[in-house]
Amino acid sequence: MNEELKQQVVDANKALVSSGLVTLTWGNVSAIDRESGLVAIKPSGVAYEDLTVNHLVVVDLEGEVVNGDLRPSSDTKTHLELYRNFTDIGAVVHTHSPSATAFSQAGLGLPCLGTTHADHFYGEVPVARALRAEEVAEDYEHATGVSIVERFQELGLNPLEMPAILLKHHAPFTWGKSAQAALDNSIALEMCARMAVMTWQLNPEAAAIPAHILSKHHERKHGNSAYYGQA
Amino acid sequence: MNEELKQQVVDANKALVSSGLVTLTWGNVSAIDRESGLVAIKPSGVAYEDLTVNHLVVVDLEGEVVNGDLRPSSDTKTHLELYRNFTDIGAVVHTHSPSATAFSQAGLGLPCLGTTHADHFYGEVPVARALRAEEVAEDYEHATGVSIVERFQELGLNPLEMPAILLKHHAPFTWGKSAQAALDNSIALEMCARMAVMTWQLNPEAAAIPAHILSKHHERKHGNSAYYGQA
Amino acid sequence: MNEELKQQVVDANKALVSSGLVTLTWGNVSAIDRESGLVAIKPSGVAYEDLTVNHLVVVDLEGEVVNGDLRPSSDTKTHLELYRNFTDIGAVVHTHSPSATAFSQAGLGLPCLGTTHADHFYGEVPVARALRAEEVAEDYEHATGVSIVERFQELGLNPLEMPAILLKHHAPFTWGKSAQAALDNSIALEMCARMAVMTWQLNPEAAAIPAHILSKHHERKHGNSAYYGQA
Amino acid sequence: MNEELKQQVVDANKALVSSGLVTLTWGNVSAIDRESGLVAIKPSGVAYEDLTVNHLVVVDLEGEVVNGDLRPSSDTKTHLELYRNFTDIGAVVHTHSPSATAFSQAGLGLPCLGTTHADHFYGEVPVARALRAEEVAEDYEHATGVSIVERFQELGLNPLEMPAILLKHHAPFTWGKSAQAALDNSIALEMCARMAVMTWQLNPEAAAIPAHILSKHHERKHGNSAYYGQA
Repeated sequence: MNEELKQQVVDANKALVSSGLVTLTWGNVSAIDRESGLVAIKPSGVAYEDLTVNHLVVVDLEGEVVNGDLRPSSDTKTHLELYRNFTDIGAVVHTHSPSATAFSQAGLGLPCLGTTHADHFYGEVPVARALRAEEVAEDYEHATGVSIVERFQELGLNPLEMPAILLKHHAPFTWGKSAQAALDNSIALEMCARMAVMTWQLNPEAAAIPAHILSKHHERKHGNSAYYGQA
Repeated sequence: MNEELKQQVVDANKALVSSGLVTLTWGNVSAIDRESGLVAIKPSGVAYEDLTVNHLVVVDLEGEVVNGDLRPSSDTKTHLELYRNFTDIGAVVHTHSPSATAFSQAGLGLPCLGTTHADHFYGEVPVARALRAEEVAEDYEHATGVSIVERFQELGLNPLEMPAILLKHHAPFTWGKSAQAALDNSIALEMCARMAVMTWQLNPEAAAIPAHILSKHHERKHGNSAYYGQA
Repeated sequence: MNEELKQQVVDANKALVSSGLVTLTWGNVSAIDRESGLVAIKPSGVAYEDLTVNHLVVVDLEGEVVNGDLRPSSDTKTHLELYRNFTDIGAVVHTHSPSATAFSQAGLGLPCLGTTHADHFYGEVPVARALRAEEVAEDYEHATGVSIVERFQELGLNPLEMPAILLKHHAPFTWGKSAQAALDNSIALEMCARMAVMTWQLNPEAAAIPAHILSKHHERKHGNSAYYGQA
Repeated sequence: MNEELKQQVVDANKALVSSGLVTLTWGNVSAIDRESGLVAIKPSGVAYEDLTVNHLVVVDLEGEVVNGDLRPSSDTKTHLELYRNFTDIGAVVHTHSPSATAFSQAGLGLPCLGTTHADHFYGEVPVARALRAEEVAEDYEHATGVSIVERFQELGLNPLEMPAILLKHHAPFTWGKSAQAALDNSIALEMCARMAVMTWQLNPEAAAIPAHILSKHHERKHGNSAYYGQA
């Protein structure tokens, strides 16, 4: 497996701390090498400051450990279900960042209340349904991934245009083409959620921005004629 | 008394600051050496940055000072009542962390609104009742400990499954097998309380998660077949 | 173009991070050299920590790039419209700071709820209207600037007495005689917005302070007989 | 004037920043040498990081500058009115810390909602009335001090038992026997105000704690038989 990719996974896991997204060990980042079909993921319950590429666990898309001495993140099966179904993504980030998690706990989607949101998420960030008792008993983390994919199919969403989900009763997942992009989406999601809490406190009627502003911001950053950032 | 344990008490007291749980000197950590029955606790009103093992006060389970030149934390008798009754715990942490203290001041228990909570606390974190004037006059800090133990007995709670309490009008206590575990529970409690405030702001009807998700998260981290963290 | 001014633009862009006003690359600072009519602005999507004077893009008031290898901030045309119309200002700052952005998203002006606000903004910070679909399609960032100028004209506001605007659905802009002054106004705006959210949470009837206190605070800091700060 | 005292004033002014109480230059600390009747205060509008004892302005109780090249804080007359009337205090701190300022802006006193508050403030922190136009016109900062003293007299409060006031439309002042004590009271006030906002969000009916708990916490820390801290 690509060593540079593994270093990116380590760096993004450490950046969960410096960006204020995680408390204790409540978060993990993985990335996939699409050529080999191998996924490098954080080991479970290991402190971020101690993490090196040697600690990463490498698994194949069926979850078999190919390399690494530690147990992979308990959320590994959720990551894998996303890689199997969202074939354009290269990395997945899971956190319990406080404001986004509050949306998960409230069971509410996060509508696009402003251009900050529109720059990252093309419309309302959806909520995946709660899992049933039998799903939890049988294969909880796999079923979590299935419920995300199912929700995206129901809503006809493109995972690269909507690189985030809120799990009901749980917390968010984000993704992107690279570990950095997936991390940036977690950072953006947390801040958009935090601003939404305040926005509704100020004005409970505040609703999604007009469609022409949503698509303008999406297009200027992500469209074919994007002019945000350096080409 | 075990020197390594004393160092853990010093480290956990200092970590109260780095984890953002304390303001001024509003918090303290103790640990018990079950073999000798001795408890090492922070001295009262001493700044965390100056703390060394030599400052710790060692008391026996009746509160007699066995070692140390300083006055022990004013909350010592509460710690001791917990050690006498919760015989599996090894350390106690008291803070006035803001969100958990707001729950204490509001007189509300903290229900399990999500899996973050379920990973640390098996159900609703309870509130201990306010103390009566005669209890406060007679032996305030002892009575505080008694009210915690009483509440756990009323609710039939296992202190290792529910390692936290909210004192009405006051603030939280947490505990665990080690100083680090007790500290982690204080960190988790503050974050769960902070997320609960936001969750109810978004959705005042948000309630405890389904029992099958609560027990799944508890079991995967703390049960006999736990697979969170490294074995 | 004045090299010292370029260094001030770099410093103020970096200070967006240290003052907690920006997340990711959501903000930019520019300054104008009124003698030459040239504007130095942050390049689009470049990280603040890497920024040097050599990265800055220098444009004239019509937006022609005079110097610099990078693409200027996507918000450049908004900055330019402000420089063309607010002829006494020397610098412009745009951020998505969370509390001020919440006001933008709520579509609410920020009234002067206390002397903190009065020290920086002479009355209610206004909201510029949402842009129509045809404005967005034709020249979005230019139209943004036009909507700000239009709002100031409607309200008869002096840009140096009211150095801030909230864009509906978007976020704030501030300005000032220097990059430092424009930055200070962004910092003050964010804190005033944050305090306003809490003020209304405590007392939904809280309203603007009496006119004699507003003008006293404005005058003691900005008037001809100002006695705040060093002469 | 006592050089050690001047150093304490410098240190406390710098600690306004490290304790998160000030934004920009919105705060100042002074201390009085009761033997000489001289007061050392921060110069107006000077950045905290640059401050040394040589920058401090020394004034007598009538406000005449005795030493120092800079203009004293614009709030100097308020400090002096407090020193003249609260003869047991040794230092005064003024900040615009966000949560306490929200109470000022809301025009609400801060009741004692928990023991954190009781450890520092013996009852509800009062609000001083808004100043009338003629008071503002004649001598604003002096009248501010007069309104504080007037409120304490109306309520029969002891300034050492209640070392804080909230100025309506403005922000808090705190004081204490030393610069450190006055600073600690500003830190405690901000945290108690922040916790009160959350407490009422959770339970709008939350009210002052019982009198026997209030006096117990006050006595164990400040009474003749205090046992909090080291003797």
